This record gives sequence, structure tokens and C-alpha cells, in this order.
Amino acid sequence: MVKARQWILAKKATDLPTFEGSEPNFKLVEKDLPEPKEDELLVKPIYLSNDPAQRGWISTEADPLRLYLPPVKEGTPMHARGLCEIIESKSSKHSKGDIVFANCGWSEYAVVPASQCQPAPDLGNGMSRTLYLSAFGTTAMTAYFGLTEVAQITKDDIVVISGAAGATGSMCVQLAKKLIGCKKVIGIAGTDDKCKWVEKLGADICLNYKSPSFAEDFRKETPGPEGFANVYFDNVGGEILDLVMTRMARYGRIAACGAIANYNSTSDKATGIKNWFEVIQMRLQIKGFIVMDYLKDAPKATEILKNMHKEGKLEIEGGEHVVETKFEDIPKTWLLLFNGSNQGKLITQLK
Amino acid sequence: MVKARQWILAKKATDLPTFEGSEPNFKLVEKDLPEPKEDELLVKPIYLSNDPAQRGWISTEADPLRLYLPPVKEGTPMHARGLCEIIESKSSKHSKGDIVFANCGWSEYAVVPASQCQPAPDLGNGMSRTLYLSAFGTTAMTAYFGLTEVAQITKDDIVVISGAAGATGSMCVQLAKKLIGCKKVIGIAGTDDKCKWVEKLGADICLNYKSPSFAEDFRKETPGPEGFANVYFDNVGGEILDLVMTRMARYGRIAACGAIANYNSTSDKATGIKNWFEVIQMRLQIKGFIVMDYLKDAPKATEILKNMHKEGKLEIEGGEHVVETKFEDIPKTWLLLFNGSNQGKLITQLK
Repeated sequence: MVKARQWILAKKATDLPTFEGSEPNFKLVEKDLPEPKEDELLVKPIYLSNDPAQRGWISTEADPLRLYLPPVKEGTPMHARGLCEIIESKSSKHSKGDIVFANCGWSEYAVVPASQCQPAPDLGNGMSRTLYLSAFGTTAMTAYFGLTEVAQITKDDIVVISGAAGATGSMCVQLAKKLIGCKKVIGIAGTDDKCKWVEKLGADICLNYKSPSFAEDFRKETPGPEGFANVYFDNVGGEILDLVMTRMARYGRIAACGAIANYNSTSDKATGIKNWFEVIQMRLQIKGFIVMDYLKDAPKATEILKNMHKEGKLEIEGGEHVVETKFEDIPKTWLLLFNGSNQGKLITQLK
Repeated sequence: MVKARQWILAKKATDLPTFEGSEPNFKLVEKDLPEPKEDELLVKPIYLSNDPAQRGWISTEADPLRLYLPPVKEGTPMHARGLCEIIESKSSKHSKGDIVFANCGWSEYAVVPASQCQPAPDLGNGMSRTLYLSAFGTTAMTAYFGLTEVAQITKDDIVVISGAAGATGSMCVQLAKKLIGCKKVIGIAGTDDKCKWVEKLGADICLNYKSPSFAEDFRKETPGPEGFANVYFDNVGGEILDLVMTRMARYGRIAACGAIANYNSTSDKATGIKNWFEVIQMRLQIKGFIVMDYLKDAPKATEILKNMHKEGKLEIEGGEHVVETKFEDIPKTWLLLFNGSNQGKLITQLK
């Protein structure tokens, strides 16, 4: 029998989750794991993926009928995907020592169904397996399918990308500029350093939304009518979305991917979208999407991303924000997602 | 030379427009009209169309680069469409005494280009020409194209229609139920009497949004997941849209047609849409539209509506709210649009 420390959900969250204080949302516990049964694996997480979407799974408002994945139940380990080493295999398809993707959760060890694990073989050329979580991972797929399938992007489009220094946004910038060749790519990020990096990735310009002149700067970068934006890849929602709506071109398309601006508040306290009439008068098309719906075509997209990488068109440098983390600090690293400190994909490397 | 009284825009509006007091938005003036030139008509409005969209043309926030029709300039007559009698024709295509549709504005007489006037011949069978403004008019086209082209409605859909007792909404209800045969049609209106009428038009149920139990009633009528709404035809925006978003089914479609809830406030004071995350998690598709974009197919739609009328499937009774109005009371009648007192199409019949 294996003992495993686990970060469990102690209490669903209404605002920014905590792991300290008298009423923490997460608690560290220790548990005896059952032995893996037939077709199960005992795995040890090495890298954890940190995703804003996880916040939705622990919301007090989470309605199982409307969530796209089951919510985390109080008293059970926080859900997370990770790259894990197989410690013990009861499946003919996986061997001890192999590295797999698994829904391991915030658990030191986990027993998982082999059928839900995907192999993560060595990428060769000295590339780190963390690329499975970043440039070739789900966030990259989100960028790819959001731009191509959801927003139906073309080279003639002026594209705005918020959260442009984030895991998904930084991939969007590169795909829009270096794969599609869009007319103009405008990034939005939260520090001047991030903006510089986003411009290095290929954005024609990246604006710092914390600058007092941001709204004015943004209007200048989208002079109407020719300079209005045709596509907005929205990772943040809230006030930025509200502003961008006022600068979309007629028949503009919005790919609604994330709304991190309001993840840590209940919906009644959320920043509302006030410029709704823009949707009507400019005949905007808005499509919400979840990458899961597109993963049947993931091999094709991965191939495209790997080719871009080979051709030197995909910047890896700076695209991963790997934080070496003790098990007891998992929530602390995860919370970096919400204070704007990560650049690229935030990855927890377990010590 | 003809003297004509005119209601001119004295001052652009930030909130509910006024025609009285010290700083009215509209002022009654008298003006000498020029003689009609070659290919112009002198017309006298008989019926004026009253449309919430007119409010947008006089907003302080109206940006000519983003409006779909030119805004009204201060000092010029308020824009309006109407059914007019030709008093003098300088066009070979129109004769004195004919009735035409024209952009006549709030003017006792108007000189208009003949090329912008459409004939409105007698409909026969004792039908009133006002039907050109209601059941066979632009608002009916809005309902038709909004449901069929924008929302791509099918008989398998559960449909929610706000402003269901309004000009567009009341047509939507009938088309959804009697033309498409939708599984369930849920109307939303502002009085119990209106709701009764909407149910008479074919809605399975119509809920009064002024009822204290409205949100709860609405949730009960859209029990998840099978009872979630597939289509929302939105005439109002604001809080009702925000609520409906929480009851849309996965991949639900929203046809964004109007946002009257916020027409009389500046955007900063508008009721914001707070449940934006629903767009993402339920993969909603929202399309703003303006009926103008679809009018090339108007003859086809009119034919369908006329056939529905012949077959007794289009309720005319109650679908027009004709107000006999003295010229000096034109704004007063128009303002009925914004206090929820009209049922069906609000038409000004000039005395």
C-alpha cells in the first residue's frame, strides 16, 4: 500500500482560492491509496499542468449540468492533468518507468485507469517533455483550433489577442503571424516586459492593459473603419472584452476562449459587458468554444506545430514558465495564474 | 412653396429623450420646403413607423463609423419611415395620390428622391395598408430572417423570445410555432395581458419579466439539461439576456436583434452581461444582425408571410398598436416604445 499526500478541495471557492487561514479552500492530507487493479496504473506526477479552467471546477456556482467536465467534489483531490511516471502497471499497454499524461490530480501518487492515460514518449533532439504541456499541448491546440476553426482566420484579418503572454495567447500570436500571416496582430498583456516578449513572438504591437492610456492606445491601434479588428481571440473577458467590442469591424468574429478577469468572483460581482449593442450594430459573431470538441483533429494540429518548430517559427524560449515546487506548495504555484505573474505556460515541476 | 411643421432633433440624447422642458431633445418648428425637382416627390406621411432602432440614431454615443445608418444631425428632422401619400410627383414612376413607403422623417410634408420610395399598393381583401408596417413589414422580416438565417431554427429547438409582445417578437412567436413548428416556444413580455396574447399567438408559455418570481419561473420552464433553450431571439439585452444565458443548451444559438433595455442610457450605465462564462462553457454562438443585410430575399419572405395569413396562421388582431396622433404629439407616441405600453407594432396614424 502506498501513502500519498494530497491537496484536497476543502471548500468550494467564491473568490480567490486560499490554502491557508481558518477556512482554506485546499487542505493538505495524507491518504492510503488502494492497490492498482487490472488495467490500472500507479503513477507519480512529475509535471503538473496549471490551467485557469481548473478554477471553474471548484466554483460554488458550478452546476454539473452546465460544466464541460465534472466539478471537483469537496473532500477529494483537486483535479489536474500531469506528466507522470508509471510506478506500477497492471496494463499490458504501459510499462513501469514510462511517462504518460494522466488525470493525476494534486496527489503525490495516483491510481488511474490505463485507458485514460496517453503515452508521452521522448521528443528527441533534446527537447523537454514539458513541450507536451506547452507548445505541443492542449493550450497550443486551443490556440490552433480557436483561430482556424472557431474564428476562421485568414491572412486578411486584423487580429486582437488578449492574455497574449499566457499559454494560449502566446501560441495564438505565433500562429496568427507565422502560420496564417495575418495583416496585423495586436497583443494585449499585463506588463511591459510581457509586451516586449509578445512582440518578439511576432505581434505587430502589444499593449499593456495596466497602462493608464491603454484604452486610448488601443483605439489608436484600431483606427476605424479600415483598422477595426476582424478577429478577437479572447482569453480574458471582462473590461478588455468590453473595450474590444467597440473596435471590432463589421461582421467581426470573436472566439470566446477564456474569461479569467472574472474567474475569481461570483457572477453577480463580475464585470459586466456593457457595450452589447456593438454585437448588433456591427453584426458580430461570437463563438464560445472548448478545445475538447476539436481534439479528434489534434494529430493534424500537432504535426503542423512540430513543423513550425522545425522551421524555427515556433519560439520555445520563454514559452514555458516552469516552477520547481515542493508538494506542499502546489496551490501557491497554481495561484500564480491569477496574479498575472506567469509568462507562457505555467508548469509545476514537482521536487 | 409648401410650409411644413417638423420635429427636429434639438439635442442628442443620453437617456430617455424628451420633447418638453428647458432642454428638449426634439423641437417642433415650421419650415418652407423646396419645390420637388426632377425625380423627386412631395409626400405627406399618413402612417409613421416607430422603431426602437431610431433611438440609436440620436445617441450622443453614436459613432458614424459604427452606425449602420447615418445618425440624425442636430437641427434636422428626426428620421422615420412612413407610408405617405404623393402630393406632387416629378417622377414618371409615381403618380399623385399613390401611396409609397418613404424616409419621410417627422415632417408634415417631405421632399424625397423617388428612387428611395417603394410603392405600397392596396392589399385587397379589405386589409389595411398598415400591414406593410407590421405583419408584412420590416419588423416581420426581422423576425423571419433572424429565426431562419441567423438562428438557423429547426422544429427540434426550444426557443426563447424576449419582447414577445413587441412588433418583432410577436412575429417571432408565430413563425417559430406555426411556420417552423418548434418543440417549445417560451415568450417573455412585460404584463400579464401581453403574456396572454403571446400565448394566444402560439407560445407554449409566456412569462412576465416584471413578476418577482420571473427568474425562478424561467428556470422552471427550462429544466436542464433536456429543457435548456437551443435558440434565443433577443430583442431586449440587459438582465433578461444575462438570465437566459444561464439556461441555454450546449451549442445554443442567440440571435442578437435588439437591446432596448439599455437604449436609454449611456453605455457606462448599461446593465452589463455578467454570465459571460456561459458563452464559453456551453459553446454558445451569438450573432448580431440587422435586417437590412437580408432584404434581398424580402420578396420570398413576404410571400411566405402572405401565405401564412391566407391560411389563417398569422394573427393580425392585436398585432398593430395604431395610435391616432396629432402632428404635435409625434414624439409622445414614439416614446410609448420605451415604457412597455405597446403591444405589437406601434404605428402613428397622423390626424
